[in-house]
Amino acid sequence: MQKPDVSPPAGTRDFFAEDLELRERVLRTVRTVFERHGFSPLETPAFEKLDIITGKYGEEEKLIFKILKRGEKQSGGDADLALRYDFTVPLARVVARYPDKIGRFFRRYQIGPVWRADRPGKGRFREFYQCDFDIVGSKSLNVEVEVFLLLADVLSEVGVRDFTIRINSRELLSALMEMNGVPPELHASVITAIDKLDKIGVPGVAKELTERGLQAESRDPLLRLVETYVADPESMKKQIASSPKGQKELSAIDQVMGVVQPLMRQGKLQFDPFLARGLSYYTGIIFEVAAEGIASSIASGGRYDNLIGMFSSADVPACGGSLGIERILMVLQSTGAMGANRTSPDVLVTVWDESLRPASFRFATHLRNAGINTEVYVGEGRIPEQIGYASKKGIPYAAVIGPDEESKNQVAVREMVSRKQTLATWDEAAQIVRGPAKV
Amino acid sequence: MQKPDVSPPAGTRDFFAEDLELRERVLRTVRTVFERHGFSPLETPAFEKLDIITGKYGEEEKLIFKILKRGEKQSGGDADLALRYDFTVPLARVVARYPDKIGRFFRRYQIGPVWRADRPGKGRFREFYQCDFDIVGSKSLNVEVEVFLLLADVLSEVGVRDFTIRINSRELLSALMEMNGVPPELHASVITAIDKLDKIGVPGVAKELTERGLQAESRDPLLRLVETYVADPESMKKQIASSPKGQKELSAIDQVMGVVQPLMRQGKLQFDPFLARGLSYYTGIIFEVAAEGIASSIASGGRYDNLIGMFSSADVPACGGSLGIERILMVLQSTGAMGANRTSPDVLVTVWDESLRPASFRFATHLRNAGINTEVYVGEGRIPEQIGYASKKGIPYAAVIGPDEESKNQVAVREMVSRKQTLATWDEAAQIVRGPAKV
Repeated sequence: MQKPDVSPPAGTRDFFAEDLELRERVLRTVRTVFERHGFSPLETPAFEKLDIITGKYGEEEKLIFKILKRGEKQSGGDADLALRYDFTVPLARVVARYPDKIGRFFRRYQIGPVWRADRPGKGRFREFYQCDFDIVGSKSLNVEVEVFLLLADVLSEVGVRDFTIRINSRELLSALMEMNGVPPELHASVITAIDKLDKIGVPGVAKELTERGLQAESRDPLLRLVETYVADPESMKKQIASSPKGQKELSAIDQVMGVVQPLMRQGKLQFDPFLARGLSYYTGIIFEVAAEGIASSIASGGRYDNLIGMFSSADVPACGGSLGIERILMVLQSTGAMGANRTSPDVLVTVWDESLRPASFRFATHLRNAGINTEVYVGEGRIPEQIGYASKKGIPYAAVIGPDEESKNQVAVREMVSRKQTLATWDEAAQIVRGPAKV
Repeated sequence: MQKPDVSPPAGTRDFFAEDLELRERVLRTVRTVFERHGFSPLETPAFEKLDIITGKYGEEEKLIFKILKRGEKQSGGDADLALRYDFTVPLARVVARYPDKIGRFFRRYQIGPVWRADRPGKGRFREFYQCDFDIVGSKSLNVEVEVFLLLADVLSEVGVRDFTIRINSRELLSALMEMNGVPPELHASVITAIDKLDKIGVPGVAKELTERGLQAESRDPLLRLVETYVADPESMKKQIASSPKGQKELSAIDQVMGVVQPLMRQGKLQFDPFLARGLSYYTGIIFEVAAEGIASSIASGGRYDNLIGMFSSADVPACGGSLGIERILMVLQSTGAMGANRTSPDVLVTVWDESLRPASFRFATHLRNAGINTEVYVGEGRIPEQIGYASKKGIPYAAVIGPDEESKNQVAVREMVSRKQTLATWDEAAQIVRGPAKV
């Protein structure tokens, strides 16, 4: 038989202990902080019925993994299920399906893999973790405040240093467009161009606006506004406030910023009137989080009042966001913020011979009962070979119970790096291996 | 637009906080115990290339969920990927793919969902959690001992009372067949019949053996052996030991049982010479775990030396098992062994009006920083409505900061059940809500 290719499928990964340790630690922290803020976990199936998923993602629909019908129906080559593409569509389905469990307000988080048949590339996978948090059921600005407090808390707690939550309002951007006479059909395109201000500067934005077909009578005042913003954000705010719609949106942003003053003072939250966010479904305040050491945002979201009701008979307001877990892990790995990685057991208990086997296993049980991660050597090799195995696997201690040790109820504990060997009682041995070498 | 059916796909489930709390707690304990025994986590993708999965499951192959090719290739209706069906095939692939990471011995666990297009039914799902643990690379009986020590430890620690690990050897069953002249082609069938001894008794087994075509000259001595076992297991062991092959297998079992004496004495491990286990790939010691309050086994496994090498050029010995997580959860739920379920936040912080909003959010942050799970009311309702919300959601405390409280830096804490209201400083309030009502 020809051996098949044993690599994981394109765009997916196999994770060993050393890859999982940081990931698990971060997710554990994230869950704790979410629950501290009153968010509950939700888990939905890996796949949904096909008609739940299709028709929701426009151009991206071709990236959905579809599942073939089973049994006799399979022969037609038709699909009836699809792997989830995000957590927003499952949330909308759950909100429509379980009104009693959802109640008046529903704050949930969902963490897990989603699947997209994107072209695999550096940092881009076909199976990757998403981490969404949303509050459903209220249009009050209290929701936005809760979202920003959660976001700041969770990012600090997982160890991201120097992050900034940039906030804006989708409606404020519309007001800006209207004030400057940008035709409605160009709104999205113009916003996309201005959103690049950070990267291409005012001249770059000017060039893009012309290319996108914006007439001079709209382009020039808009550019002056951009220039004003770069030079003096406060005076630009005054200009926005001169339009009633601009005034209303600014007031909403000011209210939110007023409540989260401590975050403002620490520079963790900033108003950015040109922040755009690509997705067209946002209806109110939007945000993106920038962090030191990474060009792309590590979290984003906003208010989207017309989406979660897609399967319900009523409108369902909602606001929330998504943590870019894969990117946050990259940031933490590069800053070493989450401390050292220790994935091997604390100690290898060797097995002298068959007659001393029971003593070795009893000693291993003694260590495990003391909460020490313990491996018993499972091969048939002799002691030097067993010690070599511990060394190769990076296990910091090896323990040997030979006939002498057994007769005295003792154990020889070897510190692998220094090769220092200590004769000890079982309790002393437990003290030694959980000592300084344990992180 | 017609609204689609918003139920989850057949055989799958949506999990809310109250469904996840016990599950998460059990899995956390399981992981801790696995690592204490030197096992490392492994995670593989949800899907595998089709040729990795197909040809491994015989009759059950029709239960595999296959994924359609994407893009233009989709039109052919062909599949090129399949959702994982278990964790054994991915383990075999990983062992073949990463020899350096696997090393001499590899002890790993994997926990997560697998997918099978079985007919959904009570307790039978199409998406369900599996939890596998295996040691790869050694034929030594030390492996079996490690497996049984782990199994007993993990079941005790998650809170399963009164379980019994029944062990036998696949080869010992063969020896029994040979001693009694059962033709090789009837071995599997006869073993299946004898395996039902617990349920149908000696007369039932006699009837089954006849129906399965076993001749009287094999059937009668076999039945006498079964009767001997029921009356006096020790004398039956002597009869088995009269054949050289039987003697060898009994000696292996005795060696293992000798090392795990404490488990034997507690009745947690028992030799059962008629335990069969359906799967034909086992090559040595096999086991199944029975528990009070559930008819089916809650864990099972054994040695299977010819399976993990399926993608490798060399044979790869292996031994391990699988915890039936869904069944263990059923047992724990029925015995209440894992304690109470508390999924709502500890406290609702109300919002008096817009002017007092900052105080309420500052107080919420104060509570969260003290590790208290806190929800801020996000609607526009007045205080009585907010209190009603807390009551409906089962939140044990509500906190109100009105103008009076605000001016004195105080907060009114209401215990929802007793309706007792206490005026307190912020620190006192934190003490109250984390007090006796917190489990």
